[in-house]
Amino acid sequence: MQIIMDAEALNAFLARDFPQVAGSYRVEQVEAQRLTARLSVDDAHLRPGGTVSGPSMFALADLAIYCAILARLGPVALAVTTNASIDFMRKPEAGRALIAECRLLKLGRVLAVGEALIFSEGSELPVARSSMTYSIPPKA
Amino acid sequence: MQIIMDAEALNAFLARDFPQVAGSYRVEQVEAQRLTARLSVDDAHLRPGGTVSGPSMFALADLAIYCAILARLGPVALAVTTNASIDFMRKPEAGRALIAECRLLKLGRVLAVGEALIFSEGSELPVARSSMTYSIPPKA
Amino acid sequence: MQIIMDAEALNAFLARDFPQVAGSYRVEQVEAQRLTARLSVDDAHLRPGGTVSGPSMFALADLAIYCAILARLGPVALAVTTNASIDFMRKPEAGRALIAECRLLKLGRVLAVGEALIFSEGSELPVARSSMTYSIPPKA
Amino acid sequence: MQIIMDAEALNAFLARDFPQVAGSYRVEQVEAQRLTARLSVDDAHLRPGGTVSGPSMFALADLAIYCAILARLGPVALAVTTNASIDFMRKPEAGRALIAECRLLKLGRVLAVGEALIFSEGSELPVARSSMTYSIPPKA
Repeated sequence: MQIIMDAEALNAFLARDFPQVAGSYRVEQVEAQRLTARLSVDDAHLRPGGTVSGPSMFALADLAIYCAILARLGPVALAVTTNASIDFMRKPEAGRALIAECRLLKLGRVLAVGEALIFSEGSELPVARSSMTYSIPPKA
Repeated sequence: MQIIMDAEALNAFLARDFPQVAGSYRVEQVEAQRLTARLSVDDAHLRPGGTVSGPSMFALADLAIYCAILARLGPVALAVTTNASIDFMRKPEAGRALIAECRLLKLGRVLAVGEALIFSEGSELPVARSSMTYSIPPKA
Repeated sequence: MQIIMDAEALNAFLARDFPQVAGSYRVEQVEAQRLTARLSVDDAHLRPGGTVSGPSMFALADLAIYCAILARLGPVALAVTTNASIDFMRKPEAGRALIAECRLLKLGRVLAVGEALIFSEGSELPVARSSMTYSIPPKA
Repeated sequence: MQIIMDAEALNAFLARDFPQVAGSYRVEQVEAQRLTARLSVDDAHLRPGGTVSGPSMFALADLAIYCAILARLGPVALAVTTNASIDFMRKPEAGRALIAECRLLKLGRVLAVGEALIFSEGSELPVARSSMTYSIPPKA
């Protein structure tokens, strides 16, 4: 189980292909089956009451699992999210970054499945959990 | 089954409490169990290849179901999304708005459940489907 | 959008290939995008308090959506459930059959997606809602 | 974080209140946030091709997470599953028991959330993953 793209390669890929996202979201660490990503929360991600918006947490989980797939398949792959399930369990702590710890559960020929836990940085109680399925396009 | 907030009241509420969102997302129509919302797609919602980003579709479904609950409970309610499931089924058509047609399936004392189908405007094949659960806070 | 297997053909298929299931679960009606299935509830499906077990409702939704796919593809297809999401919203009424009303949202080359609402027979308030994805095997 | 019911107490509870289930499903091990459960697969759980049925795997995950909650709250609690999401990722190996390794992610006043990975006994690649939410009834 080889890593084709490391954190630096993934962040360069995000900066080029996902410029709207790359300012706030970053890959921190990559292992064969695991990946850590970070959302530097700013006003654009907040909702009334100071909580981080659901779509921002969805985006963090999606980016983390997507990058865990690219880490293994390389940047050619146009993997597409086909299903996502997310549980919002606690209110994130104000003024903290969010950390997604993601694990690849399956990397098949056609489908890949990963899951992510999201934490307020420095906290051990998960704010959210998510699992997502990606469709892997056939090789050209 | 009374409607407490109509489309105009919901859009005024969004403009005041969710200003980051209110520019692109709008409630179009409200009935007792159903609500239609619209995302005017611009560059901020797009991904490479011209597709609309998953988080933008998630946000549309979330807003539609949330507003369907507020339409019945009024603006006081601080309903919080606790679970979301979403299937991305087709690529949205380029240059079209997205329309969410949402239905409230349960409005309990503690939990509410709704579902939404998302279409490219003018198309009959759904781009995505989503179901979400909200926790309703106890009355003060 | 042609129907290849009608309710009678689907029930004969279930009786032959799923004998553990065919005694209690039945396809009632088949249209191009919709299918109705029925679970005749008996003691094996009940839980303490007289409610129908979650796995029995899961099985009903799964069977309904699976048969909606077979209705269109024919009995050769070995479609496999890859993802399921289910919300249990109300307690089923005692002594009533459960009815699943299912709709096919996508029937692609590789993936199919359907959703089902489950009702106590004669009631208009859904007991549960489910959406499921199936992987369609390549044609031999 | 105290354990109120251990594996023996949980299995006695299942034998008394869930007799249809207790023959095949067993709690193996209980810790504060984790629980292991086991399904001894027999013909009633099989589908054509020798695979374990989806509802049987759903039932295993449901039982594991439910027991992880009871382990902490005691047998009085009538927790009810409100949402379940499950991904079927690999075909279970023929003639092997299934093991669910479950983790409690949240045990709130109103809602509890847990997740489970299911393995063929002796294998390290997960067959399925599931997350479920339970509604906790108010104390009398």
